[in-house]
Amino acid sequence: MKCTSLILVVLALVVVSCGKKQKENRNMKKIYKANILYTKYKDHFEMLENGYVAVDSNGRVIGVAADLASLGTDASQRRIILDGEDVEIIDFGDRLLIPAMNDLHVHASQYRNQGLAMDLELMDWLQRYTYPEELKYADTAYAEKMYCHFVRDLWRHGTMRACVFATSHTESTRVLMHIFQKAGMGAFVGKVAMNRDCPEGLAESVEEMMQGYESLIGGDVSQRRKSLGSLVRPIVTPRFIPSCTPEMLRSCGELAVKYQLPVQSHLSENKEEIRIVQKLEGTWYGDAYNRYGLFGQTPTVMAHCVYTDGEELELIKQNGVMVAHCPTSNINLTTGSIAPIRKFLDNGLRVGLGSDISGGHDLSISRMMVYAIQMSKMYHSQNPQRPFLSMSEAFWMATKSAGSFFGHVGSFEPGYEFDALVIDDSDLNQDNYSLQERLERFVYMGDDRQIAHRFCRGQEIMEPEL
Amino acid sequence: MKCTSLILVVLALVVVSCGKKQKENRNMKKIYKANILYTKYKDHFEMLENGYVAVDSNGRVIGVAADLASLGTDASQRRIILDGEDVEIIDFGDRLLIPAMNDLHVHASQYRNQGLAMDLELMDWLQRYTYPEELKYADTAYAEKMYCHFVRDLWRHGTMRACVFATSHTESTRVLMHIFQKAGMGAFVGKVAMNRDCPEGLAESVEEMMQGYESLIGGDVSQRRKSLGSLVRPIVTPRFIPSCTPEMLRSCGELAVKYQLPVQSHLSENKEEIRIVQKLEGTWYGDAYNRYGLFGQTPTVMAHCVYTDGEELELIKQNGVMVAHCPTSNINLTTGSIAPIRKFLDNGLRVGLGSDISGGHDLSISRMMVYAIQMSKMYHSQNPQRPFLSMSEAFWMATKSAGSFFGHVGSFEPGYEFDALVIDDSDLNQDNYSLQERLERFVYMGDDRQIAHRFCRGQEIMEPEL
Repeated sequence: MKCTSLILVVLALVVVSCGKKQKENRNMKKIYKANILYTKYKDHFEMLENGYVAVDSNGRVIGVAADLASLGTDASQRRIILDGEDVEIIDFGDRLLIPAMNDLHVHASQYRNQGLAMDLELMDWLQRYTYPEELKYADTAYAEKMYCHFVRDLWRHGTMRACVFATSHTESTRVLMHIFQKAGMGAFVGKVAMNRDCPEGLAESVEEMMQGYESLIGGDVSQRRKSLGSLVRPIVTPRFIPSCTPEMLRSCGELAVKYQLPVQSHLSENKEEIRIVQKLEGTWYGDAYNRYGLFGQTPTVMAHCVYTDGEELELIKQNGVMVAHCPTSNINLTTGSIAPIRKFLDNGLRVGLGSDISGGHDLSISRMMVYAIQMSKMYHSQNPQRPFLSMSEAFWMATKSAGSFFGHVGSFEPGYEFDALVIDDSDLNQDNYSLQERLERFVYMGDDRQIAHRFCRGQEIMEPEL
Repeated sequence: MKCTSLILVVLALVVVSCGKKQKENRNMKKIYKANILYTKYKDHFEMLENGYVAVDSNGRVIGVAADLASLGTDASQRRIILDGEDVEIIDFGDRLLIPAMNDLHVHASQYRNQGLAMDLELMDWLQRYTYPEELKYADTAYAEKMYCHFVRDLWRHGTMRACVFATSHTESTRVLMHIFQKAGMGAFVGKVAMNRDCPEGLAESVEEMMQGYESLIGGDVSQRRKSLGSLVRPIVTPRFIPSCTPEMLRSCGELAVKYQLPVQSHLSENKEEIRIVQKLEGTWYGDAYNRYGLFGQTPTVMAHCVYTDGEELELIKQNGVMVAHCPTSNINLTTGSIAPIRKFLDNGLRVGLGSDISGGHDLSISRMMVYAIQMSKMYHSQNPQRPFLSMSEAFWMATKSAGSFFGHVGSFEPGYEFDALVIDDSDLNQDNYSLQERLERFVYMGDDRQIAHRFCRGQEIMEPEL
C-alpha cells in the first residue's frame, strides 16, 4: 500500500530543474529539496542532507523528511500530498535551505543615517542626528524614496519579517506599510507616538495619535479580525517613556488592547535614560510600561534591555515580553554595558535579534548573530559562570525565537509558515565542510550574495522595485 | 611663465575616459582625478572634492592638488611633470580615491578555518583546530589551492600589503610568495619557526629553519640588498614564545639581523599564554623577545598586545615596535580584555590593524576599523578618561600608520607609493552626503563590491587568477 502511494506521488510530481526562478503557482503544494538546517531547540541544529520539506498551498510546512517516502509515512500528511492537486518538486541541489531572518527592532526612518553619526551617546544622538532626519518624513515623497530603499535592503539580507519604527507621520507610515504589502514581506509597522521633549514637527497630540492609528488600522471589526492574520499590521509604538506623557502612554495601552495590536518600544538601554524614566514615572522602567498596559498585555517586544535585571527581568518573564537584543547598536551608542542574554535565556525569557538601524550600522541579521556571540564572549569574560552563546543559540534567536512574535514563523516544523532562504555558498565552500560548518561560514563570512532565493509564507519574494 | 608651463602640460595630456580599465603603461606618469580622502594626521581627513593626484612612473606620488594648475606650482614637481614623457589623466568621476588597506597580521594557512571553530580559547584552539589544518601544508598542491583563494580574497577586500604567516613548510611558503609576486601585491611572508609543544609535522630543527629561510631569501648579497625594495619579502616569524625553544628564538633574532629582515610574532594576547611565557623565560613577554633580538632590532610587528602595559608598553615605544591590533580575533578567541589602543596612541606607539584570520573571521580591513572603534567604545566605558577612536584615527591606523611598516605606504603625500582604492559608492549614496559621510558609510556598510579599482605601487592590480 505504501509503495503504491509513493508511485502515485511520483507520477503527480512536476519536477523542476535546480534553482531556477519559478513562476509562482499559489494553488500547488511544493516540495523543496536541499540541505536543510533549522533549530527546533536552541542547543542544536536539525540537519537533513539532501532532505525534503513539503509546503501546503497556504504556505505552511507539512513536514520535513530525509527522503520522499518518509514524507508520506504519516497518514494525514499522505492524504494532503495525494489529494489530487499537483505537487511541484523544486530541487535546490547542494544549496542550504534555512528559515528566513527576523529583525525585531529596526527604525526604517533612520535609513539615511545608517553608518553615520557614531560619535555620540544615545540622548545626544537622538536630538542631534535622529530627530532632524525623522522630521523629513513629513514629506511622503521623501518617505517613499527612502522606505523603498530600506525594504529592498531588508529583502537583500533575507529578512522576511520585521518590527519596524516609522515616524509619527501617519501618511508616510501608510506608505511604508504599502511598500511591505507590495513586496509580500511580513512587517509590524509602528507609527511612532511621541509628545514630550522632541521637536514640534514630530510631536502629536494624543488625539492626533489615536486618529492616526485608527486610520492605519482601518475597516470595521470583521476586517480588523481578518487583518490579525495579514503579513503587514500596525504595531503600537510609544517611542520610549522619556518622549511620551503619561496620557500618551495610557492611550497607547488602551489602543493596543482595544484593537488587539502588538506593542514595541525601548527598555533600559542607557543609564541616563533609566535615570530620566525613574524621575518622570517614579518607578523602574519596565514597571512604568506595565502600569500603562504596554508590557505584555498584548504581544510586546522591548528593544535592548541592557540593564534589565531583578524585578524587571521577572516581569518580562511573567508577562511573556520579547527581548530584542541589538548588539551593534549597544556598542555603537556606547551604552556602557552588555545585555545579559545568557542570563535571559537561563531564565527562560524570549529573546530575538534586532539590527536597530541606525544605532546599529548593519541590516544583516547574520551579522547580528556574530555580534551577539561576540558580545556574549565579552560578557562571559566578566561573568565566567555564564557560558557564551553557541551558533545554534544565536541562529535560534534570529529564527524560531524571534519568529514566534509573528506567529508560527522561524522553523520548518509542521504548521510553521514557510519563511525560508536558499543559500548558494559555493564560493565559500572550497573544501570538504560539514553542513553546520557551511552554515557557520555563511553566517560569519557571507552576505546577501549567497542568498539565492527568499520565501515568505510560502511565496518566493522577488526583489522589490525601487 | 607659469601659464606657459600649464599649457604645455595640457597639450601633453592623454585624457582617458572615466573609470574604464586601462592597459597599464609603466613608463607613463599618471594623474588621477577623483574625490580624494586620506589621513596625513590621525585626527582628521585630508579631503579634495574632484581633486588630482599625480603619480610618477615609479609608482610614487608626486603631489595632490585641488586642480591641475596647482600640481605645477612647486618647481621640482613642474619639472617632473613636464620632462617630455606623456602624462595620462584618468578621471574617476564622482568616485572616492583612498589609500589601499594594509593587514598587519593574518595567517594565510588558516584560510580554510575562517568563520569556524569559534568555541574555544586560544591555547585549546591552536591544538585542536589550527595545528591540524597547518599540517596539510606539507602538501604544496593543497597550499597552492588555498593560498590562491586567500590572495584573491585579500585582493577583493582592497588589501594591497600584508604581513602574513604561512606555515613552517618552506616549499609551500615559497608558493605563497610566488602567488603574491604574480599578483603584484605587497607582502611580508613568514615561514613559521616552531619547535616546541606542537605536532611533529610542524616542528623543525633550528638548522632546518635556518636553511629554509636562507633558501627563501636566496641569491647573493647584492641581490638581497635589491630585494629590500621588492614588494614580496620574507619576514622572520617565530610563531610565539611558547612554541619556540630559546635556541630557536636566538637563531631567529640572528637571522633577522644578518639578512636585515623584518620580524613578526604574537605578544600578550591571552593571560594563560602570558603565564606560560613567564614560566618558560623567567621574564615578561616583550622582554623575552627583546633578549633574543626580536623586538625592534629590525622592523618588528607584534600582534594583539591585549595585556601590554607598563614596562612592555615603554619598550615597544622605545624600540619602535609596531602593534597589530586584531579586534575581531580578540573577541572571537575570548582573550578576556580589550587592547588599550587609545592608551597606545596617547603614548605615541605605532598601531595598525590586523584581520588575524582565522582567530578573526573577516578579511576586510574596513570592518576591522569598525570593530576597532567599537572595541574602543567598550574600553572607554570602562576607562572614561580615554576617548574612543574616531573614524579618522581608525582609517589612519589602517592606512598610513600600518603602511609605514612597508615603507612610504598608506598616504598620498609626495614620495608615498601609490597604493590606492577607487570606491564606487553609488549604491550607498542615495542622498546628499558629504565626502566624509560617504567614506564612513563605505567603511561601516560597504564591502568589496564598492571597490572598483585597486593600485599597488602605482600599478593597477587586476583580480588574481585562481
